[in-house]
Amino acid sequence: MERGRTLATPVLRAAVDRLAPPMDTVAAYHFGWIDAHGRPADGDGGKAVRPALAVLSAEVTGAAPETGVPGAVAVELVHNFSLLHDDLMDGDEQRRHRDTVWKVHGPAQAILVGDALFALANEVLLELGTVEAGRAARRLTTASRSLIDGQAQDISYEHRDRVSVEECLEMEGNKTGALLACASSIGAVLGGADDRTADALETYGYHLGLAFQAVDDLLGIWGDPEATGKQTWSDLRQRKKSLPVVAALAAGGPASERLGEILAADAKSSDFANFSEEEFAARAALIEEAGGRDWTAEEARRQHTIAIEALHAVDMPDPVREQFTALADFVVVRKR
Amino acid sequence: MERGRTLATPVLRAAVDRLAPPMDTVAAYHFGWIDAHGRPADGDGGKAVRPALAVLSAEVTGAAPETGVPGAVAVELVHNFSLLHDDLMDGDEQRRHRDTVWKVHGPAQAILVGDALFALANEVLLELGTVEAGRAARRLTTASRSLIDGQAQDISYEHRDRVSVEECLEMEGNKTGALLACASSIGAVLGGADDRTADALETYGYHLGLAFQAVDDLLGIWGDPEATGKQTWSDLRQRKKSLPVVAALAAGGPASERLGEILAADAKSSDFANFSEEEFAARAALIEEAGGRDWTAEEARRQHTIAIEALHAVDMPDPVREQFTALADFVVVRKR
Repeated sequence: MERGRTLATPVLRAAVDRLAPPMDTVAAYHFGWIDAHGRPADGDGGKAVRPALAVLSAEVTGAAPETGVPGAVAVELVHNFSLLHDDLMDGDEQRRHRDTVWKVHGPAQAILVGDALFALANEVLLELGTVEAGRAARRLTTASRSLIDGQAQDISYEHRDRVSVEECLEMEGNKTGALLACASSIGAVLGGADDRTADALETYGYHLGLAFQAVDDLLGIWGDPEATGKQTWSDLRQRKKSLPVVAALAAGGPASERLGEILAADAKSSDFANFSEEEFAARAALIEEAGGRDWTAEEARRQHTIAIEALHAVDMPDPVREQFTALADFVVVRKR
Repeated sequence: MERGRTLATPVLRAAVDRLAPPMDTVAAYHFGWIDAHGRPADGDGGKAVRPALAVLSAEVTGAAPETGVPGAVAVELVHNFSLLHDDLMDGDEQRRHRDTVWKVHGPAQAILVGDALFALANEVLLELGTVEAGRAARRLTTASRSLIDGQAQDISYEHRDRVSVEECLEMEGNKTGALLACASSIGAVLGGADDRTADALETYGYHLGLAFQAVDDLLGIWGDPEATGKQTWSDLRQRKKSLPVVAALAAGGPASERLGEILAADAKSSDFANFSEEEFAARAALIEEAGGRDWTAEEARRQHTIAIEALHAVDMPDPVREQFTALADFVVVRKR
């Protein structure tokens, strides 16, 4: 993943530098390149899974990894556009151990800079002026639409009492799967791959995304705050209907029923914001007892397997296949 | 303009129908197709200048007006994406005589549906899958970036004491000129026009946009609320540094100086929100006395002339040229 970051970051920074002030500064803060006072920072730029996939996918076609760089940058821009807007919509105050953009620079800048990054993503691709870039931009647009659909589902599910496991998987496929699918194929598309190859790489990325999100959902409840940069029981505090929760509710049995009663009462509670650590810990224990934790861990492995199998449909050099496999392995064992 | 609306609206509605619920409903409310309770409405869909320009520009190349329709729809989608986000950023509660989306459906839906319309704009073009569509998408992306730059300038100017006439024109060129430039050329690009033709049509549209905005700035102060759908003295209430204001402040002389003192005091006033009609009327009278109203009206005519002249560089059928001219004439005489 280091290679994806090393190749993509300078081009990403150059793209962000094109933004007019103060958007360039706000974006630089978001990416962790400067702190809230404008001083240079060496921030945690995230896991860089997406750029790694994009440059790797270029090599599927025999092209140099550099061919995938505009795709890597475009995907990172779309990903970060969605983070800026989602953090504001969800009222999330922290990301990657730092205050979110809307907290530091205000809601208007979060909206505006998100918009600018989204536009920049298309610019970075379309200015290549090639047929391949047009195809890449089209796939990126499809992925962006899925991302937005997923956020719409996420918001609407928060207002509902019950969400099925299928609905949750569909939402996570939109929010996480679609853009990882695009990342996994965009370098290949830029390298001239045919649609069949690109589609197979998208299938790999989509299921990798579902595995990624299942692990994220586990970390959102049982993750180490030091590693994740989020609060303890982060997803429970936000009443997020994540996979472990919906799987536990769907499982049936005494723990599942008790959990259902508690969460229904929580939804009506005006005191929820003041709940203690122990109260969240009790809910996490019930989710685990009802089988939600085990089911989600198994789901991550299941999606990992489907992702790896999708690679079989694509001819590629052995070292490239090994790296796709290693990236998938990383996604399911990561702690942050 | 009726033709642009008639050709583009069904395709626009079909595009918006692709949005997942509840985004389709929120967007339909924004476009005036339904009311806040979801009942069908025959809302004021705006002036439809942009779709008219887009379908007309297709005919420059000898193509059928229908060739410009995906461009008309894409431009309308970008325009409305920016309205949704700008209304939220600016805290505007009314548009086209109706409550804005964030007032009715909340800030999150305004952000989300804006994002969705922006993505849909690219989708509508890129799914054509042609080289021309890729070129059109690139021009639309450039225009979108300008639009966002203009909104950034607009926001930052509101926090400043003084804005020069040049800065105001640059901001208005970004906010209004760029997308009208794109609308005026996108049909031609889809019809296979070369870059020189497209650039000349963009010049027409850009200056038409500046004329349009100068008229908008006049209507924002002296417009009839019944016609514009805005409050009386709308731009003054928002302390907008629009063209009449900055021109009046730059003019020098007693009225200009008095206006400067009053606006500087207003900027610090905590009671500004409770100002009476008479207080705004007095400010408007000073702007007029300092020459801001006349200067802006003259600027509208000047930009109109540049726009018409840009058409000379392009070969096109006479009826097409006449319609471009009629559209430019409409823009400077309109009352809403």
